[in-house]
Amino acid sequence: MMSDLNEKFAQIGVENAPGQEARRKEEKLDIRGEPLPGIPVDFSHGDVDAHEPTPGAFEAFRKGFERGAPQAYTEYRGGRHTREDVAAKLADFAATAIDPDSELIITPGTQGALFLAMGALVGQGDKVAVVEPDYFANRKLTLFFGGEIVPVRMNFPETDMGAGLDLAGLEAAFKSGVKLFLFSNPNNPTGAIYSESEIRTIASLARHHDVALIVDELYARQIFDNRPYTHLCAQQEKPDTLITILGPSKTESLSGFRLGAAFGSPHIIDRMERLQAIVSLRAGGYSQPVLDTWFNEPHGWMEKRTAAHQAIRDDLLRILRSTDGVKVRTTEGGSYLFIQLPPMDVSMQDFVKITRRLTGVAVTPGTEFGPGFTDWFRINFSQDHKAATEAMERVLTVFERYRSA
Amino acid sequence: MMSDLNEKFAQIGVENAPGQEARRKEEKLDIRGEPLPGIPVDFSHGDVDAHEPTPGAFEAFRKGFERGAPQAYTEYRGGRHTREDVAAKLADFAATAIDPDSELIITPGTQGALFLAMGALVGQGDKVAVVEPDYFANRKLTLFFGGEIVPVRMNFPETDMGAGLDLAGLEAAFKSGVKLFLFSNPNNPTGAIYSESEIRTIASLARHHDVALIVDELYARQIFDNRPYTHLCAQQEKPDTLITILGPSKTESLSGFRLGAAFGSPHIIDRMERLQAIVSLRAGGYSQPVLDTWFNEPHGWMEKRTAAHQAIRDDLLRILRSTDGVKVRTTEGGSYLFIQLPPMDVSMQDFVKITRRLTGVAVTPGTEFGPGFTDWFRINFSQDHKAATEAMERVLTVFERYRSA
Repeated sequence: MMSDLNEKFAQIGVENAPGQEARRKEEKLDIRGEPLPGIPVDFSHGDVDAHEPTPGAFEAFRKGFERGAPQAYTEYRGGRHTREDVAAKLADFAATAIDPDSELIITPGTQGALFLAMGALVGQGDKVAVVEPDYFANRKLTLFFGGEIVPVRMNFPETDMGAGLDLAGLEAAFKSGVKLFLFSNPNNPTGAIYSESEIRTIASLARHHDVALIVDELYARQIFDNRPYTHLCAQQEKPDTLITILGPSKTESLSGFRLGAAFGSPHIIDRMERLQAIVSLRAGGYSQPVLDTWFNEPHGWMEKRTAAHQAIRDDLLRILRSTDGVKVRTTEGGSYLFIQLPPMDVSMQDFVKITRRLTGVAVTPGTEFGPGFTDWFRINFSQDHKAATEAMERVLTVFERYRSA
Repeated sequence: MMSDLNEKFAQIGVENAPGQEARRKEEKLDIRGEPLPGIPVDFSHGDVDAHEPTPGAFEAFRKGFERGAPQAYTEYRGGRHTREDVAAKLADFAATAIDPDSELIITPGTQGALFLAMGALVGQGDKVAVVEPDYFANRKLTLFFGGEIVPVRMNFPETDMGAGLDLAGLEAAFKSGVKLFLFSNPNNPTGAIYSESEIRTIASLARHHDVALIVDELYARQIFDNRPYTHLCAQQEKPDTLITILGPSKTESLSGFRLGAAFGSPHIIDRMERLQAIVSLRAGGYSQPVLDTWFNEPHGWMEKRTAAHQAIRDDLLRILRSTDGVKVRTTEGGSYLFIQLPPMDVSMQDFVKITRRLTGVAVTPGTEFGPGFTDWFRINFSQDHKAATEAMERVLTVFERYRSA
C-alpha cells in the first residue's frame, strides 16, 4: 500500500529543519581538536528571548481568551474584526486593495498560509517554478501535492542590482507549461531583495503566460539600509491568480502564537478556507487578537528592531569577510546570511554536525535550499548580538581545521 | 490547469460547517408564521462560555509565554516535556504503552491530528472505509488525499448493544482491498459507543486483512450512565498500523488553544511530523503547556462536567420524544444528538435555514455525516442548559409548521 507514500514522505524529511536538533542521533565524525566553549547559539531560527515579542502581544491574547466563545470559534478564515483590521493594515503596507470578506485568510503561521496556498494551486503533475536558492518548504510542498519542480536560478552572488533572478530562465519555464511560480521576497536564504524591474517583469510574464503567483513576503518589514522594496501585488500588470503571504512570526517574534495571513484572488482564498477547515479548522482563536498589535507597534519600535539586526549583520559580515575565501552577499532584508565556504576535507553535512558538537552552534546546510548548494550554509542572525558574533568566530575557527590544503 | 482541483475543492465545501453561519447569504425560503424570539443557540458547536475551559488553562499558557524561546520553537512533534507528560497520561487513560519519543505527536487540535494521520496513510486511489454516519471531515479528508470512500453502515437506531456497526459489511470492505478504516468512538454524530465485542472484532479484522486503523477518541472522556468504554489500542490483537486521536477541545472546552494529540505506530507518527513541518510547523508553542492541565483537572471537575451534560441530554431527549414521529438515540458519550424528523413539506437543507431565521437556532444537516441522512440533523448540546431546551422547543414548534399532512 505505502510504496508511493513512502517515496513522498522520503522527500519531505525534517532532519535538518530548524528546531529538530534535539532529535538527531549521534554519529561517527572526523573530529579535529578540542571543543570551543561559548554560549550555544541555534542559528537555525531566531531567538525570541534576544528580540522579544511585540509589546502588548500577551495582553491581546488575554483579551481574546476573556472574550470567550465568539473568539474560540471564529469563522475558519479568521474572525471578522481581525480580518477587517488586518486587511486595512496590509492594504496600506502593500499599496493594494484587500476585501476583508473575500480576499484575506488568517492562518496558523505563514507556514500555514503557504501550505494552504500550495494545496489550493498545485495538482498532480502540475509544473511549479521554484527559485534556487529559496525557502526549503517550497520544494517539499510542491512534491507533497504531486507537482513537478522546475528550478529557476538566482545568480545572487554576482549582482547588487536586485536578486539576480534568471529572468530568461523564468520565461522559458513559463513557456514550458509552468502553472505556478512561488518565491520569497526578501529571498530566504540570501536576504536579496528583488528590484522593481524584476518584480514588474515577473508580474508581466506571469500575466502573459497565465501563471499563478505566490509571493512570500514574510520578511518584508525588515529592510536594511533604507533600500526600496516593491510589492508585486501593487503592480498594474499582474496575473489573475496571485496570493501574497505575510505574518508576524519573524521580525515581530510572535512565532509562538502561530499567526499568519494570506491575501489575494478570492477563488483561491475560498479554496484555502475549505482546506483549512479539514487541516486545523482555524488559526488559534485566542491568538487571533494578537494581530491587533501587528503594524501597530509602539512608535520607533520597528526602526529600533531593524537597526539592531542591521548591526548584527554588519559585525557578522566583517568577521566572515576577514576569512580567506568565504563568500557572502550582504543581506538586504530579513535575518538570514547565506555563506559559502572554501573547499573542506569533510562534507558540509558533516561540517554542520561537527560544528554543533565542537561549538554548540547550529547552522542549516545549504542543500536544504537547493540541491546544488553543497558548500553553503544558512544562519538566522536574529540572535543575541554578542553571542552571535562569538559563535561565528568559533564556527570559522572550526572551519580552519577542515580547510583543504 | 484547475479542472481536477476544481472538482477536489467542490467536494470539501464548508457552507454547513460549524462557525460558518456568518458567511451564508440570504436566500428565498418558504417562511411560515412569525419568528419565535429567544436566546440564540448555535448547536453546530459547543459553547465554551456555558461550559468554561479547564481551570488553570490560561495560567499554563502564560507560563509557556514567559518561558520564551524554548517554548516558541519546540520540536515539530511538540516539546519534550509536554510529550512525556501527555504520553504518560494517555497511556494510563487508554491502558496501553506510549513512547513519548517515537509514538506521540502534539498537533493543532484533533482536526490537525486527523489531517496528518490521513495524509500519512491515504494515497491516490487507496480505498478507505468510512462509517455512515460519522464525522463529516472523514469523507472530505479521504477525497482530498485522492482516496476512494467505501461506506460501512452503522445501524445505530436499532440497537443498544454497541454502536451497531455492520461488521459483515466491514469485513466485505476489508476483503475488497480497503487500506484504512477510520471511525470515531463515541460516534459523531450519534453519540453511540462501540461495544467491547465490536472493538475486538474491528481490531481482529484489521489485523487479519492488514488494514490500518485511525480511531478518533475525541469524546472518550465524556461517557454517560457509567457505561463501559473500550480502547482499541488496549487490545491484544490489533493491526500493525494504528493511530489513536484525542484532544482537549470538547469536554475540556480548550478549542481556542488549538491542541490535540495522536499516538501509535512510530512510522506513521514520523510521517505525521514530516507533514506537520510543512503544514503549520507545530502546535502553537505557548499553547502546548496548556496540556499540563489535561487529565489533571481539579478533583470532581470532570464528573461534574459530565453530569451537567447528561442532564442537558436528558431534558432534550424528553422534549424530542414527546414530539410525534421524532426519532433519536440516547447519547452514550459526547455532546451530540442525531435527530430524525418525520416527513416535511421542505427539504432538511431548507428547514435548517428556516429554523435559523425564525428562531436564531443553528443545527447541522444530517447529510454532512453521510449522503443518506436527508431527514436528520445534528446538535451539539454542550450549551447553556435552559437556552438549549428552550431552543429545541422553538425548533420543534417550527417543525410542526412544516410537518407533512
